[in-house]
Amino acid sequence: MPHIALNSAEPGIRGLLRYRPETARPLSELTEVLLRGPGTLARGERELIAAYVSALNDCRYCSSSHSACAAAQLPGGMTLVKQVRADPASAPVSAKLKALLTIASAVAQSGHAVTAEQVAGARAAGATDMEIHDTVLIAAAFCMFNRYVDGLATIAPEDPALYTAGAQRLVEQGYLAPSADPGH
Amino acid sequence: MPHIALNSAEPGIRGLLRYRPETARPLSELTEVLLRGPGTLARGERELIAAYVSALNDCRYCSSSHSACAAAQLPGGMTLVKQVRADPASAPVSAKLKALLTIASAVAQSGHAVTAEQVAGARAAGATDMEIHDTVLIAAAFCMFNRYVDGLATIAPEDPALYTAGAQRLVEQGYLAPSADPGH
Repeated sequence: MPHIALNSAEPGIRGLLRYRPETARPLSELTEVLLRGPGTLARGERELIAAYVSALNDCRYCSSSHSACAAAQLPGGMTLVKQVRADPASAPVSAKLKALLTIASAVAQSGHAVTAEQVAGARAAGATDMEIHDTVLIAAAFCMFNRYVDGLATIAPEDPALYTAGAQRLVEQGYLAPSADPGH
Repeated sequence: MPHIALNSAEPGIRGLLRYRPETARPLSELTEVLLRGPGTLARGERELIAAYVSALNDCRYCSSSHSACAAAQLPGGMTLVKQVRADPASAPVSAKLKALLTIASAVAQSGHAVTAEQVAGARAAGATDMEIHDTVLIAAAFCMFNRYVDGLATIAPEDPALYTAGAQRLVEQGYLAPSADPGH
């Protein structure tokens, strides 16, 4: 049961976005720019970074939702997402994405945990400064979303089918879609 | 030296906001709503929560900046801010604010660290559900900002006078002011 009385029965971030529209707007805009806006990282790769950090933070709602979004947009599907979540180093993703996931993992621990060596490694594997920037900000943003969702004890359904259905809407319509179902 | 090549010499979040305007807009809007928008927590109290969490995360730029903003808007000034940062439990602030700071401290650790007892304590001390919501989101947002600022190794000046001057501008103009100095 959520720690505060929300104004809907919607789970996870969706209930919070509905409860506080003034903060929902910039939060949704941030998510849209980071995960779907113009950029050289594929949308599926960005969702994978979000899912990975959310799993590190043990946030069931966010990790399930963004794992489903990543699976829907990556050729490797949910099999690949599960491999990355279990062990990025041995997962069949590019050296560049592995290096960015290493940085994301450091961010989840602390900003100070990101090292010059990790950044140099990402650059050597082909990452641009903007990709490194966006990786750090995606990881940092999910350290916020995860704490927001779990800090208020919102509902996190267990049924994977619910997240798959939600991901289908998000992949098609994005995080800004005005609907009865504003969430992510 | 920052991990990536920024397009200005501005310190902390200011250099990052200048580098990536697409993410700067929602980030600045979020900060404006949370720290200065309509609400029943005083602006100085909200800045104090931001400063406290940033200090827990060992983020010099954000903790210095928001300590200065809190000091400028609270009767107790920087003396009070330092007392709170050292030990909220013994600082001369209301029982409600102490309870909210306890929740903020838990959020800095993990969303799962916030307990029903902490929330009940805040409510017993007079906190509304919206105040509890905003405390969790302010704390979570600064877990993002701190990681963003330190994860990219931005510059954090040591001179307190610089933060005092910056706080003066922020208190007067807010986080959305279009200027040569967009930051916080």
